[in-house]
Amino acid sequence: MTADSHTINTSDFLDHISLDCVIFGFHNNELKVLTLQLKYTRDYALPGGFLKTNETLEEAAKRVLQERTGLDNIFLKQFKVFSDLARAATNPAVNDLVASGIKPDLDFFGKRFISVGFYALVEYTKVEPTPDFFSDKCIWKNVNENESYILDHNQIIEKALDVLRLQLSYQPIGYNLLPEKFTMPELQKLYETILGKELDRRNFQRKMLSYKILNKLDERKRGGAYKAPYLYEFNLENYQKALSHGLSGGW
Amino acid sequence: MTADSHTINTSDFLDHISLDCVIFGFHNNELKVLTLQLKYTRDYALPGGFLKTNETLEEAAKRVLQERTGLDNIFLKQFKVFSDLARAATNPAVNDLVASGIKPDLDFFGKRFISVGFYALVEYTKVEPTPDFFSDKCIWKNVNENESYILDHNQIIEKALDVLRLQLSYQPIGYNLLPEKFTMPELQKLYETILGKELDRRNFQRKMLSYKILNKLDERKRGGAYKAPYLYEFNLENYQKALSHGLSGGW
Repeated sequence: MTADSHTINTSDFLDHISLDCVIFGFHNNELKVLTLQLKYTRDYALPGGFLKTNETLEEAAKRVLQERTGLDNIFLKQFKVFSDLARAATNPAVNDLVASGIKPDLDFFGKRFISVGFYALVEYTKVEPTPDFFSDKCIWKNVNENESYILDHNQIIEKALDVLRLQLSYQPIGYNLLPEKFTMPELQKLYETILGKELDRRNFQRKMLSYKILNKLDERKRGGAYKAPYLYEFNLENYQKALSHGLSGGW
Repeated sequence: MTADSHTINTSDFLDHISLDCVIFGFHNNELKVLTLQLKYTRDYALPGGFLKTNETLEEAAKRVLQERTGLDNIFLKQFKVFSDLARAATNPAVNDLVASGIKPDLDFFGKRFISVGFYALVEYTKVEPTPDFFSDKCIWKNVNENESYILDHNQIIEKALDVLRLQLSYQPIGYNLLPEKFTMPELQKLYETILGKELDRRNFQRKMLSYKILNKLDERKRGGAYKAPYLYEFNLENYQKALSHGLSGGW
């Protein structure tokens, strides 16, 4: 199911299993999520797809991400499988195709699907948003925009956001969302945006530095005034350690 | 698929989707996992099952847990979907049935299955281990016993243990594994068992009390000496808060 394919060979895929990707990016102090707009009904959907008979879920998610963003090597994590019975209805994207005169394989699309949710963190500026077979627009939406999505995609975004917020309390975040070099105020803004609340500047800096996941560079942000803030980069060794063992260093 | 059913009506279940439950219990200072021993080959397997056409994954996991342990209302969490291609081989439990002369529906069992992993924390003494259709023994094994399990069940247990360990660094654990009242040494032993290492007594107590998730009772452990340790219970309100927001109270 590449972006420019004109048919979907449903026999390549397993019945009943789909995946949906919540792709987060950070831009202009906003947390954004990559969405698709369907060709006919103009509804919004998350990038997603089906599981090929010869690939793992992780390979399928990488394939979807690569096709929608142009990027490889994205931070990617399974976070929940969605299996509500209410979502068993035929995917609206398929009704959309029917409305357009295309005859999809309803024996496949009409089945009940459970969907494996992945979330991904990407560097906004590096993404080349690319629509898929069902859509003609691939665009960033502010995560708080409360757009109406198909199926349970609103709920999938909400849940991904919950997981991301909880993750802030025990794992580092930022390496995949910020440029290589960033200032402390930029990092703080990322946290504030995800958490949806303001944080105290001094407490944030003190706590963040205590985790030892940052290298302070001997360089200030360009174009700034005399008091321009210093640049930081992540200390990748410690960052990885904190990803595996938690920020507090564990017990 | 109840424990005493003699056939499995495969048309009740969705193709391609199974679930496996890593049920942890704590007893005699050992972390244990509930296992099934297959009738013929005597291999071990995790309790699991398939997804009924009319139930969610959570309902399926509750059903499996209820059938294997006799318990409702168990702490239960999805932690990962396993979809390696190597696991696509027919489930050995089914070969086991064939060896016993039973003819299973190989059109169903011969398909590729992805398996949704759940882990559960239960109070050991309350469990009534009950075998399923494929097994004649349901027994607790020490999690470190390095038993040989069917398919990727070793890997599923390893991964569940990883998740449990990481969880110790940001969420409380114990409410579902310990009796209602417990001593600080008992709680510490639980942590040490999960982490697989000894912890400093004073640091453990200081850190644990700082989370404010315990109520110290005006009562010492019975049958103990003059210096018998005090009993504690979890402060459920704060415990729940820490489950949602992390032990550190978040940002």
